Amino acid sequence: MAREIRNILFIMFDQLRFDYLSCAGHKHLHTPHIDGLAARGVRFSRAYVQSTICGASRMSFYTGRYVSSHGAAWNNFPLKVGEMTLGDHLRKNGMQCWLVGKTHMKADDEGMDRLGISHDSVIGARVSECGFDVHTRDDGLWAEGVDGFYDTRRSPYNEYLRGKGYPSDNPWADNANAGVDAEGNIASGWLMKNARHAANIAEEDSETPWLTSRAIDFLESADAKKPWLCHLSYIKPHWPYIVPAPYNDMYHEEHIQPATRHPDELIDPHPVYEQFMLGAVGRSFQRDEVREAVIPAYMGLVKQCDDQMGRLLAYLETSGRMDDTMIVLTSDHGDYLGDHWLGEKELFHDASVRIPMIVYDPREEADATRGSVSDALAESIDLAPTFMEAIGAPIPSHILEGRSLTPFLHGRSREDWRRFAVSEYDYSPTPAADALGLKPRDARLFMIVTDRWKFVHAEGGFRPMLFDLEADPEELNDLGGSADHAETIDAMYDHLFAWARRQSQRTTVSDERIISMRSGGSIRKGILSGVFDQDEVEPELLVKYRGKAPRGVAQRPGSAREAKADTP
Amino acid sequence: MAREIRNILFIMFDQLRFDYLSCAGHKHLHTPHIDGLAARGVRFSRAYVQSTICGASRMSFYTGRYVSSHGAAWNNFPLKVGEMTLGDHLRKNGMQCWLVGKTHMKADDEGMDRLGISHDSVIGARVSECGFDVHTRDDGLWAEGVDGFYDTRRSPYNEYLRGKGYPSDNPWADNANAGVDAEGNIASGWLMKNARHAANIAEEDSETPWLTSRAIDFLESADAKKPWLCHLSYIKPHWPYIVPAPYNDMYHEEHIQPATRHPDELIDPHPVYEQFMLGAVGRSFQRDEVREAVIPAYMGLVKQCDDQMGRLLAYLETSGRMDDTMIVLTSDHGDYLGDHWLGEKELFHDASVRIPMIVYDPREEADATRGSVSDALAESIDLAPTFMEAIGAPIPSHILEGRSLTPFLHGRSREDWRRFAVSEYDYSPTPAADALGLKPRDARLFMIVTDRWKFVHAEGGFRPMLFDLEADPEELNDLGGSADHAETIDAMYDHLFAWARRQSQRTTVSDERIISMRSGGSIRKGILSGVFDQDEVEPELLVKYRGKAPRGVAQRPGSAREAKADTP
Repeated sequence: MAREIRNILFIMFDQLRFDYLSCAGHKHLHTPHIDGLAARGVRFSRAYVQSTICGASRMSFYTGRYVSSHGAAWNNFPLKVGEMTLGDHLRKNGMQCWLVGKTHMKADDEGMDRLGISHDSVIGARVSECGFDVHTRDDGLWAEGVDGFYDTRRSPYNEYLRGKGYPSDNPWADNANAGVDAEGNIASGWLMKNARHAANIAEEDSETPWLTSRAIDFLESADAKKPWLCHLSYIKPHWPYIVPAPYNDMYHEEHIQPATRHPDELIDPHPVYEQFMLGAVGRSFQRDEVREAVIPAYMGLVKQCDDQMGRLLAYLETSGRMDDTMIVLTSDHGDYLGDHWLGEKELFHDASVRIPMIVYDPREEADATRGSVSDALAESIDLAPTFMEAIGAPIPSHILEGRSLTPFLHGRSREDWRRFAVSEYDYSPTPAADALGLKPRDARLFMIVTDRWKFVHAEGGFRPMLFDLEADPEELNDLGGSADHAETIDAMYDHLFAWARRQSQRTTVSDERIISMRSGGSIRKGILSGVFDQDEVEPELLVKYRGKAPRGVAQRPGSAREAKADTP
Repeated sequence: MAREIRNILFIMFDQLRFDYLSCAGHKHLHTPHIDGLAARGVRFSRAYVQSTICGASRMSFYTGRYVSSHGAAWNNFPLKVGEMTLGDHLRKNGMQCWLVGKTHMKADDEGMDRLGISHDSVIGARVSECGFDVHTRDDGLWAEGVDGFYDTRRSPYNEYLRGKGYPSDNPWADNANAGVDAEGNIASGWLMKNARHAANIAEEDSETPWLTSRAIDFLESADAKKPWLCHLSYIKPHWPYIVPAPYNDMYHEEHIQPATRHPDELIDPHPVYEQFMLGAVGRSFQRDEVREAVIPAYMGLVKQCDDQMGRLLAYLETSGRMDDTMIVLTSDHGDYLGDHWLGEKELFHDASVRIPMIVYDPREEADATRGSVSDALAESIDLAPTFMEAIGAPIPSHILEGRSLTPFLHGRSREDWRRFAVSEYDYSPTPAADALGLKPRDARLFMIVTDRWKFVHAEGGFRPMLFDLEADPEELNDLGGSADHAETIDAMYDHLFAWARRQSQRTTVSDERIISMRSGGSIRKGILSGVFDQDEVEPELLVKYRGKAPRGVAQRPGSAREAKADTP
């Protein structure tokens, strides 16, 4: 049977570092299933997210556009109504677009009200869900505090757990993300000191297996009979850092790779970097006890993810889907885990901004590249046009800002590939912006990465940051203040400037349409701009215009006599 | 009676040059009524449009946003659905927003279909009409060519003329915009050689008086009982250049001001400028016979506009509206009329990009500035926030990119006013782009104007253009290739770069909301990011989190016994 692309399985993990996979060189974490997918596809070793925060990054994946183009710059900043998504582009070409898992999408309720779009309508539901039809939506953050729940929607996962007999009103919090301490009390995964406990849940009921099962449900459903894209979007290995047995006990202190950090980084750091190091999360991850508690749990979470990939891939194999389905595996950003004296993500060191990206293309054309690693600069927004090309649809390049990765999958050279990738971070709602006394518009960072350099521009009057990835692959030596690098810094600013001037909002007219206008069609609709005399125009264009002449002068009321009087 | 701003009358002319008014220094064209409005308000002598083409410029006026922010970069490029307009902002604050005349708005039909917005609904009608409720919509371009009509909608103006007994099926073309030649045939205004003919129409039926009457109709209508903004948007003095008697015979060769041009401009010109000079319209306006035919007609059209302003202002006075209505008079761009060897508009010489802008504020606070001229750099997008402030509404500065002009109206100093204004022109659909072999994204120009300099950056690898407005106010000497001006050019590029990095799409979250987020509210919703131990968190924030503890461990199914077994 011919191998073809009928479907797309777009798998995303949350906060999975690019280098926590054995195929990417992790020394102690063995991820044979993900490695196996890489062996059948192409692994993009230099793939970057468009923003280092969940919501903004995801909106870029789903719209195929840079963050400053779609505008949803931070978690829970609504994606403005009208912004087109993968679902819009795919459905137009006869493909369904389904969600199983997380999106971090916040609907633009105000915009929907303004345009009279009901959340209950099919269109409204899609607009609210970032263009997806929802098989399962669960963002996996069922936190509750003194002001109530972080996420006030229904939680399919909690419903599942309660259905399985977990008695808590929030088993996500009390079971999936909590252990039991020596006294028999809940040991919440929210406290990192509890990370090594086994989550108080049957392994098969924990979040990653549960979502894998939901994906298999989808694949077996009637909806999967028509071509589909399924976005299987896992919640893990994102914090809370806690994992059920046996994964909680697989990795120990000796498996923790040394932190990528150096005391020199603390000396005269860039002011924005400094604020993040001074932040609560940064200070936490500077402590050895935090890394020692968290990293083995994080590794266990990744290991569980890999095992679930094994389960899923086996299902895909058995069901024949490996022959007709493009599979992408990626993450929305990484996790510092103490590297560079930081925790979480947000800034632009590789631990945060670089992501795993594996693309499996079942077609014969991709056979030659299977198992290869591409170091081409890939961006998360490249997936949307890759999907369009995969299904043989035109790529709306006036809307999508990424570029199809197909040439790399099919072993065609791309001499004209991008020379730099871009990422953005709007930290305007953070305490760091407050500490720096910045207006919201000035609390923004832009990263430019090239083959050799990584450069960060900070609005607000700060110097830039610069790393020489060749001499300093661990990004420990910030050259942003180095006079010796003025020329490189200028070149990076040139890249940023060219990118900032890009045309990102002219989304209602295609390039093809524009080029077709150049022949000047308006004269064919009677617009004779700049014409002095009819001799200047091709006679056939004047047919309509002159057509009135034989009927004589167009009279105005009461003018017939005057006209006659003038004509002897 | 206290003078207040209850209503706003936002008057726009089409293609009215900034300097074709006697208050702006025209030597032969006397415009006493517009001058009279300037005497009662503030005239902004350095006001610039955001684009030098109708559609793009108008969308900036109506959205309060730069062209590369709203994306409708050329005539008939649809304004994308979701983009907010004056109507959205005003209505939210209890003000109606009405249209009488032209907008050049092209609805985003595809986007409306995608979002299920019916054109027939009130919301759909507003989305289609750039946020306005339509009293009268008539774009005044009822041209017909071999491929049919340029504008296929109904023409209220043609309906009016037919109702008045004009027998043509298109009296706009055959009467309002055509004269009668010596042989008694139609002499179309589309041919500039016919510009000096009197249009074959009763003066009171021609477009400018007709729209004035429609505005007066509006002012007398029931809807005028609630606060309103009325956008009275004239079609003239835009081409076809032809005007009814007596205006066709008021100005003659001796009233034509010399063309602002110099033979040196033809030597080694900037390649983009060169293409426009080589274009059909440019070549036309380089001929004396064209200027001699067109300019007296253009002046007649402006004179008629001024007379109609007299009629309208008299009505406003009598009806009491001068006491409760802010009045703005402006234009969507200028007209080269042969200056710089060009016709039409499009490039950034003053004849094209600089506009008349007069703002009359009835309030007492504005008494001190009446009759004054402000040379502050004003942009067309400043009107939207000016209107918001005028009606006491908050200015949504995360959406509107202009700045309120109120301080200038009320005589307050603005030390922090903008240092440069920006205009853009996307000429990608033009023959010039074709001749230069440019991709659509490279056929774009950006103007930066400061107190002293005017700078134009052209995408596509060209050198910039630069004019020293102090030494060369007529903009005849392009210094863009001058090595002596490298520093100035760098400074202009810095301005453009800062502007290009502006945040234009984060329109769903206000700055106020962002600043309120800085105190870190997510912990109050249970997100304990980076917390190792509960001692690191204020106890009261843990109430909910710890609230489950007294109830003991959250059991998982079948785990009760195991838990018991562990607890002696």
